[in-house]
Amino acid sequence: MALILSAHPNIEISISNKTILQQLEQSGLEIEVRDLSRLYPHFEIDVEAEQAALQRHSTIVFQYPFYWYNMPAILKHWFDKVLTYQFAYGSKGDKLKGRNFLASFTVGAPETGYKTLADHHFRVLEFCKNIEQTAYYAQMNYIDPIFTYGHSVNAGIAATEITAKAEQHAQKLIAQLELLGRC
Amino acid sequence: MALILSAHPNIEISISNKTILQQLEQSGLEIEVRDLSRLYPHFEIDVEAEQAALQRHSTIVFQYPFYWYNMPAILKHWFDKVLTYQFAYGSKGDKLKGRNFLASFTVGAPETGYKTLADHHFRVLEFCKNIEQTAYYAQMNYIDPIFTYGHSVNAGIAATEITAKAEQHAQKLIAQLELLGRC
Repeated sequence: MALILSAHPNIEISISNKTILQQLEQSGLEIEVRDLSRLYPHFEIDVEAEQAALQRHSTIVFQYPFYWYNMPAILKHWFDKVLTYQFAYGSKGDKLKGRNFLASFTVGAPETGYKTLADHHFRVLEFCKNIEQTAYYAQMNYIDPIFTYGHSVNAGIAATEITAKAEQHAQKLIAQLELLGRC
Repeated sequence: MALILSAHPNIEISISNKTILQQLEQSGLEIEVRDLSRLYPHFEIDVEAEQAALQRHSTIVFQYPFYWYNMPAILKHWFDKVLTYQFAYGSKGDKLKGRNFLASFTVGAPETGYKTLADHHFRVLEFCKNIEQTAYYAQMNYIDPIFTYGHSVNAGIAATEITAKAEQHAQKLIAQLELLGRC
């Protein structure tokens, strides 16, 4: 039912993204997980394999940490290579039409930082226009992203607290996937 | 004076980005050009070399084609790897403080597409918040980006017309660099 494209550069040392993937795998949902960084350590994306995977699923989840107010490079490379003319757009490019596009990402800093007068100056959704319009251009069904704050150990947050946040994040994501599965 | 970070995945087959780089090289400006895709075909960025290059210049230009409403993956990878804690941010991370941050990018589609009711639904600047806030977080001096439309042969635009647009783009960029050089 859902394809989970994981784009953490090193999932083994991740707390949040690893926890979210584990919860998804234990959820009983019918999912296929592809860890892009592990599949393509040198960014040599197999376009045919990725396009075939997309066509097996009605919902595509992009699971990643928010890096520099944007997606990690491996996921950007995936978009650049996989969403080709006459596959994702163009006169015959309807292979993704109607599939659900769901970004699910973890933000390192706390929510208080994402205000006009705070350190990050913008709301997180203001950084999401590029993924939103990418979904529209591929004729996909853009679902509002699922994101949660305070996932960075570097921001002084305890690992146990981060794990708890990641579990809450996973529950939101699982609930959304269950809803989409019933549609 | 200015470091030009070129991030076109294949500059040889590019019309616009190649033309812009050629015009820059012929301008007589004191520049250093680093072609990130050629330096790092497997995305194995040399962080020390990149950080050293940054510190040689007061202005950093990011020259790239606009892909999926965002930068190409190699440039995103550069940000993820090079802008490290205590280099670009953090209590001692002031190595980029006060340097000019100037994005210069070519947009494939014509300007008419970048309207709410048109194909791309948003204005180009709405897609630039992530680079703007990246500059702020690194304490850099964010200069409004230079971008021009209609650079894609796939959008049915003639190569001669694209070359002319690229030359105009280069002139804008050179004028901005001359202005910054006088400051």
